[in-house]
Amino acid sequence: MSKEITSRSEDYSKWYNDIVKKAELADHSAVRGCMVIKPTGFAIWENMQKQLDKMFKDTGHVNAYFPLFVPKSLFEAEEKNAEGFAKECAVVTHYRLKTNPDDKSKLMVDPDAKLEEELIVRPTSEAIIWNTYRDWIKSYRDLPLLINQWANVVRWEMRTRMFLRTAEFLWQEGHTAHSTKEEAIEEAKLMQDVYAQFAEEYMAMPVIKGIKSESERFAGADDTYTIEALMQDGKALQAGTSHFLGQNFAKAFEVKFTDSDQKEKYVWATSWGVSTRLVGGLIMTHSDDQGLVIPPKLAPTQVVIVPIPKPGEEIDEVANKIMAGLKEKGISVKYDQDEKKRPGFKFAEHEMKGIPVRIGIGKRDLEKGVVEVARRDTKEKASIGLDNVVAHVEQLMEDIQNNLFQRALDYRNDHMTSVDTFDEFKKVLEEKGGFISAHWDGTAETEDKIKKETKATIRCIPNDAKEEDGKCVFSGKPSKRRVLFAKAY
Amino acid sequence: MSKEITSRSEDYSKWYNDIVKKAELADHSAVRGCMVIKPTGFAIWENMQKQLDKMFKDTGHVNAYFPLFVPKSLFEAEEKNAEGFAKECAVVTHYRLKTNPDDKSKLMVDPDAKLEEELIVRPTSEAIIWNTYRDWIKSYRDLPLLINQWANVVRWEMRTRMFLRTAEFLWQEGHTAHSTKEEAIEEAKLMQDVYAQFAEEYMAMPVIKGIKSESERFAGADDTYTIEALMQDGKALQAGTSHFLGQNFAKAFEVKFTDSDQKEKYVWATSWGVSTRLVGGLIMTHSDDQGLVIPPKLAPTQVVIVPIPKPGEEIDEVANKIMAGLKEKGISVKYDQDEKKRPGFKFAEHEMKGIPVRIGIGKRDLEKGVVEVARRDTKEKASIGLDNVVAHVEQLMEDIQNNLFQRALDYRNDHMTSVDTFDEFKKVLEEKGGFISAHWDGTAETEDKIKKETKATIRCIPNDAKEEDGKCVFSGKPSKRRVLFAKAY
Repeated sequence: MSKEITSRSEDYSKWYNDIVKKAELADHSAVRGCMVIKPTGFAIWENMQKQLDKMFKDTGHVNAYFPLFVPKSLFEAEEKNAEGFAKECAVVTHYRLKTNPDDKSKLMVDPDAKLEEELIVRPTSEAIIWNTYRDWIKSYRDLPLLINQWANVVRWEMRTRMFLRTAEFLWQEGHTAHSTKEEAIEEAKLMQDVYAQFAEEYMAMPVIKGIKSESERFAGADDTYTIEALMQDGKALQAGTSHFLGQNFAKAFEVKFTDSDQKEKYVWATSWGVSTRLVGGLIMTHSDDQGLVIPPKLAPTQVVIVPIPKPGEEIDEVANKIMAGLKEKGISVKYDQDEKKRPGFKFAEHEMKGIPVRIGIGKRDLEKGVVEVARRDTKEKASIGLDNVVAHVEQLMEDIQNNLFQRALDYRNDHMTSVDTFDEFKKVLEEKGGFISAHWDGTAETEDKIKKETKATIRCIPNDAKEEDGKCVFSGKPSKRRVLFAKAY
Repeated sequence: MSKEITSRSEDYSKWYNDIVKKAELADHSAVRGCMVIKPTGFAIWENMQKQLDKMFKDTGHVNAYFPLFVPKSLFEAEEKNAEGFAKECAVVTHYRLKTNPDDKSKLMVDPDAKLEEELIVRPTSEAIIWNTYRDWIKSYRDLPLLINQWANVVRWEMRTRMFLRTAEFLWQEGHTAHSTKEEAIEEAKLMQDVYAQFAEEYMAMPVIKGIKSESERFAGADDTYTIEALMQDGKALQAGTSHFLGQNFAKAFEVKFTDSDQKEKYVWATSWGVSTRLVGGLIMTHSDDQGLVIPPKLAPTQVVIVPIPKPGEEIDEVANKIMAGLKEKGISVKYDQDEKKRPGFKFAEHEMKGIPVRIGIGKRDLEKGVVEVARRDTKEKASIGLDNVVAHVEQLMEDIQNNLFQRALDYRNDHMTSVDTFDEFKKVLEEKGGFISAHWDGTAETEDKIKKETKATIRCIPNDAKEEDGKCVFSGKPSKRRVLFAKAY
C-alpha cells in the first residue's frame, strides 16, 4: 500500500492528497469545492469537537443554534464584514422547483417562487447573531453573553483543497457580548489561549500566538488574535482566530444595554472559530511517506491488534485479554481478524491510517511469552512480555503524544529564521521556508509589496515579540519589533 | 412568572408557544420560518444527540458528513423523491454579491455570478449520498455500509411552528446500503426499535411502532416504519421514521455491487431520521400550566438548590456538600445564589424551566436537620434529613422518569379508542381526540376522503395489529386489520 503514495520530497501537495484519499479521510463530491468527510476523517473531527466543546464549556460558554440563512439586508448592515465576504457568498433566490414543461422528467426553478429578499448562506454568523442579540440584551445583567455554535458555513472559494479550504466547511463560532472593552479583549485573548492549548496538548501541533496586521484582520474586527502553525513544507497554517470586534456589530445592529450607572451603551463583542481545517493541519504536521500519523489523544482507534498469521484460539485469547486491559485504561483498540488479508498487508494499511500503536500476536512469540509492539511515530518495534503489554501501551500513548509534539516543535524552531535584509528574506523564503522574523515598518503598503514580490504574508506579530529597534527589511524605515512572515495556506 | 403563560385548556397552541418562549428554549428569527435555538433548548437537543449517537454507534453505525448542496441534476434523479420535495426547496442560483451601483451602501446579487447548474439546499440527503455511494461500493465486501450524519436540512414550509415544523431544522439521517432486501428491511426495523427505545426510555414518551400507508410514506421509499406519539391535546406526533428504500436510489444512481456469486446486483437501501422536532414532542408530552417539564434523563440541569431566603455561610456549606454528593452520583446540579431574586420568584422560574428537582435550604429547616425537596412532576414536597438528601434525590431521578412515562402512557391508553362506525369516528375525533383504531379498506381513495372530511390521517398500521375481519369504517368494504387514525402535527 505505502508504495501508492507520493513522497513528500517528490510532490508535497500530491502527498497530502494521497494521504487524504488512502487513509480514507475525505472524498471529492459532486458539488464544486465541497468535500465528503468519510467516517475515518469525521471520527478525528468528532474527537476534536468533543475536546474543544469541553474546553469551551469549562470557560463558561454554552451552545446554541442560529439560522443557516442571513437576509441580504442584515448581511450588508456591518459594512466591512459585508464587503469582506460579498464576493464568496452562495445566494438563495428561490424557494421552489417545478416540473420542466419541456421535459417532464426534469425540474426547473419556479420563477413564481422568487424570494422578495435574497438569503445569503452564512459565510460566518455575526450578522444574524447580532440581529438576535438586540432582543436578548437590555441590561448589564444580561452580560456577558457567552455563546458558541457548531455549524456549517459556506464561502465560495475559487481554489479549494480538502480540509484546508473548501466551499462548505464545518466549524464552531463563538459569539460573545460584553459590557466593557477590557472584558471583550480579555475574552478574545482567553479563546486564543484555549485554541493554543488545544493545538499543542491534543493535536501535538506547536503554534505561535500573535496578533494580525490590519490587512490580515477578520472583516469587521478591530483586532484578530491568531494561532499560527508550521507545516512540513515550510508553509504556515492559520489554525484558529479570535476577534475583538469592538462595537462594530453592536452599532450596525443597534445593540445597546443599560449599564449599572443607568447609561445606555453599545455592547462590546468578540467572535472566534476553528474549523475542519484543523484536520488538514493535523495531517500535515505529523504524517510521513508511509501515510497518516495521528497523535494518540485524537486517534479514533489508538491500538490495533494483528494476529500473525491469522486468528486462532490461542491468539484470540491473548488478544481478548489485552483488549480488555486496554479498554479498562480507556484506550480504544481494534482486533483485525480479517482472514482475507495477510499480516504484511495489514501492517501497511494500519500505518497508512495512522493508528498510533500496533500489537502483533504470533504463535512463535507467544511461546516466548511476548508480543510485538510497534509505534507508528518512530516505527520502533519491541518485544513485550504479556504481563507488561497494557502498561507498556499506556506509557506509549503518552510517549508518542510527547514525541510528536517535540518533533514538530524542533522542526518549527529549525524553521524560524531572523533576517535583516530583504535579500536574506527572499533567500530564506526560497531555500528554507518556514517563519521569517523580520522588522516591518508597520504600513499596509510595505506589507502588500512584500506579498506581491514574494507571496509571503505577515502571519502575526507574536504576543511575545520583544521591543527592539530596527529597520524595516523592505523599506528601511524604523521599526519597533519583529513580526513573522511566511508563505501560508 | 407562571401567571404569564396561557393554560392548556384555554389555548393549547398558545400554551406551547408560551412555554417555548418563557422557558427560553427558542426564539423567532429574522429568517422566515427559521428559529434560533436558545442555550436551554439546545442543551436538551445536545442530550438527545449524545444518547442517540451512542445508540447508533452501539448498533454498528459511524458518522460522516456530506455536502449541504445537491446539484439539481442529482436531486431530480430519483423521481418520486424529487417530486416529493420539489415544492419546498431553497435554491442557490448565484455565488457572489456586488455593490449596488445605485446605492453604494447596499449589495446586490451579481448577475455575472450565476451558477451553471442550480444547487438545492438539501431537504434530505439521499441523492447526494447515493451519488457518492456509487464510488464506494464495488463488492459485497464493501457492504453493509452503515453511515449516519448529523446535519441541518431545509424544507420551505408555509406554516411553521417552533421545533415542530421549521424551514431549517437539525436532525440526523442514517443512510445504509445492503446486499440483500432482507438485511435492509431488518436494518430499517432495527432503527425503528432504536427510536422507540430512545423515545420511551429517555424522553419518557410512549410511542406506537407501525408502518405507514402508501400515501404517508417517505417520497422514494418502499416502506416507512414510524414511531407515533400522542400529545396532550389529543393530536399525534410522528416522532421518527425509518425507511426501507428498496433499490430505488441504487437504480437512480446506478449503484451496483459484485456479489459473492460474481453477479452484479443493485444495492438495497434504508434511511432513517429524527430531528429537533423531538424537542417539541418532549415539551408537549410532559409540560403543564406552570411550564416546562423535562424527564431527568434529558434535563440539562437535574437539580437546583435555592437558599431561603438567601445565601449565607451555613446554607452555602450545606449546599456545597449536597452538590458534591450529587455530582459524585453523576447528577447535574446548580446553586441559585442570585441575591436579587426572592425564593418564591426563583421557585416559579425553575418550575417554568422544568428542572426536575428543587432543593430548598432554609435556616429554620436546618435547625431541624432537614431540607425541602420538591419534585417538578407532581409538585410534591418532602422534608428530608441532611444525611439522606443525596440518596433521596438519586431515587427521585428514577421515580420522576418512571412517573412521567407512566402518566403519558395512561393518557395515551385513555385516548386510544376503537370505533366501528364513521359517526363514532367523527364523534371521538371531535370530542375526545387521540388515536382511533378503525378498520380501513386499504385504498388511498378512502384514506383521502377521510382526511378531507375529518383532517384525520392514518398514523400507522401498528406492528402488533392483529388479524381481524371487519368492515372499513368509511366504505364498508372488507378489512383485515385495524389501523390508527388521528389528527396530527
